[in-house]
Amino acid sequence: MSEFGWIRRYFAPLAASDPAALNLTDDAAFLTPPAGEAQVITVDAMVAGVHFLPHDPAGLIARKLLRVNLSDLAAKGARPACYFLSCALPAGTGEPWVADFCAGLAADQALYGIRLVGGDTVATPGPLCLSLTAVGYAAAPVLRGGGRAGDDLYVTGALGDGWLGLQRLTGALDAWEGAEAAVTRYRLPEPRMAMGLALPGLARCAMDVSDGLMADLAHLCRASACGAEVWLDALPLSESARNACARFALPKESLISRGDDYELLFAAPPAARDAVARAAARHDTPVTRIGRLTDGTEPVLRDGAGHAVTLDRAGFDHFAKS
Amino acid sequence: MSEFGWIRRYFAPLAASDPAALNLTDDAAFLTPPAGEAQVITVDAMVAGVHFLPHDPAGLIARKLLRVNLSDLAAKGARPACYFLSCALPAGTGEPWVADFCAGLAADQALYGIRLVGGDTVATPGPLCLSLTAVGYAAAPVLRGGGRAGDDLYVTGALGDGWLGLQRLTGALDAWEGAEAAVTRYRLPEPRMAMGLALPGLARCAMDVSDGLMADLAHLCRASACGAEVWLDALPLSESARNACARFALPKESLISRGDDYELLFAAPPAARDAVARAAARHDTPVTRIGRLTDGTEPVLRDGAGHAVTLDRAGFDHFAKS
Repeated sequence: MSEFGWIRRYFAPLAASDPAALNLTDDAAFLTPPAGEAQVITVDAMVAGVHFLPHDPAGLIARKLLRVNLSDLAAKGARPACYFLSCALPAGTGEPWVADFCAGLAADQALYGIRLVGGDTVATPGPLCLSLTAVGYAAAPVLRGGGRAGDDLYVTGALGDGWLGLQRLTGALDAWEGAEAAVTRYRLPEPRMAMGLALPGLARCAMDVSDGLMADLAHLCRASACGAEVWLDALPLSESARNACARFALPKESLISRGDDYELLFAAPPAARDAVARAAARHDTPVTRIGRLTDGTEPVLRDGAGHAVTLDRAGFDHFAKS
Repeated sequence: MSEFGWIRRYFAPLAASDPAALNLTDDAAFLTPPAGEAQVITVDAMVAGVHFLPHDPAGLIARKLLRVNLSDLAAKGARPACYFLSCALPAGTGEPWVADFCAGLAADQALYGIRLVGGDTVATPGPLCLSLTAVGYAAAPVLRGGGRAGDDLYVTGALGDGWLGLQRLTGALDAWEGAEAAVTRYRLPEPRMAMGLALPGLARCAMDVSDGLMADLAHLCRASACGAEVWLDALPLSESARNACARFALPKESLISRGDDYELLFAAPPAARDAVARAAARHDTPVTRIGRLTDGTEPVLRDGAGHAVTLDRAGFDHFAKS
């Protein structure tokens, strides 16, 4: 089947609910953004062997691609609207793979209320290479800049599971109790959409944690022109991660300089503590106060005695990947 | 230098003129589309060894990537506004390559009045893999659907040079008089922006020719629910292409089933012939009437005697590429 055959059979149905897409039969999509809102657009690329394992199920690859972009929209307080998909498929890609990939997209489209409106599909002599452009809307998007010294620092959910899941999948770590949960977390992140929509009016600044807490926090500090201190003891770990730390004698700090968390990191004034707690409860989202913004220039991690803790790696950098 | 170092040094300056990009320091870009216009968004991906030669100069690769997307905007009658860039760079990519790539983008940003507002840069163990999402605006965009039997069919510029240039670059064809012009055309298409902006109100339907005239026309016919006849004798060739046809005894029809033309294909009612000619003159764009839409169901190519001509290949299909 040709490129156009695949588009008609598998991709066009993903776009059928949106007239902007013209069933993927035109050169472009035609959006009519709602007046009075900012349009929030984010792009994330993923490559087989770098961001996922080449033999991961196609449906999970598709859903991860969509979800890492949704996580960016959530961090800006934007509701998802539509997306564009760019696929460079290896020469031997077969129809069952494409069908599974698109079934994954269909499942998450229904879950997150987003639909395909355009894209491009080409062949590559190399590994599968994907890029997704997601479009959302927000009346008052939340930026990385805007934090002030004295603000409380919060993170949703738990950190480190994604990295631990990858270590299990690659065999770098033996099994531990709850390892399956970490593997699932690596393959299928859970973007914090509901809590993200609660951020405008609550958070002064926000971003998603995708390259490691401390590395991402450094970006937030730079954008907000402030420093930060993070309390190691306060950092939230899942039961699976606690088990892995105990089993392999991993120090807790080794879990927070890695990627694939897809949690929200945000700052809010101390006066908003009750409001943050109420929003967390209302949206059934664990939210932990992990430190505060300071008048320094960069983030510092402190142990229970107040001493600065040095990380072995500053975070995930795609060009420094080992 | 790290991913973030490259972004700060080379990519951020390309975004400096647009507050929507926040200097590429946030998770997303924040657009405020003008009210009362459609937002036209298109995506094109390019892979080394498929859409360009791996050792093509980085600046030319960048400009081609931008221009193939601009050609899609032109075909919709949209003025370019901004773009998102997704780069999967091979492991050995050095800083001079990135600097040259971004210098190419800067040159075309100035030429076409468009700017970078976001994207993603990752590493790949495979070939260079690029995807660009271009955003434009049009009060009344021109679609592929909308053509009617009896409409005149037009194409801008000349056909076949891009494919001939590729044959010369790969050594499949020896040199001919004017071969350099064809090579330049392959590496650096000239999107028909001015003529594109003249299409709304003039053309009933339009698209850009990127996968071969007859293949693309088939898409236009399907969207417009009509057929078409194309007059082989009327098809415009450049002097370089005419020389190549003579030198290698290539039949004219062999030039129109290939890709990389990036000309505009559009249909307009016969009553608009004078207006089309005036617009072509005003925008200094060669426009040739090459046939008409019919009440058939697909495009037919006819020679001077009116006989149907069969093509050896229906057009560029990324999955059938030899």
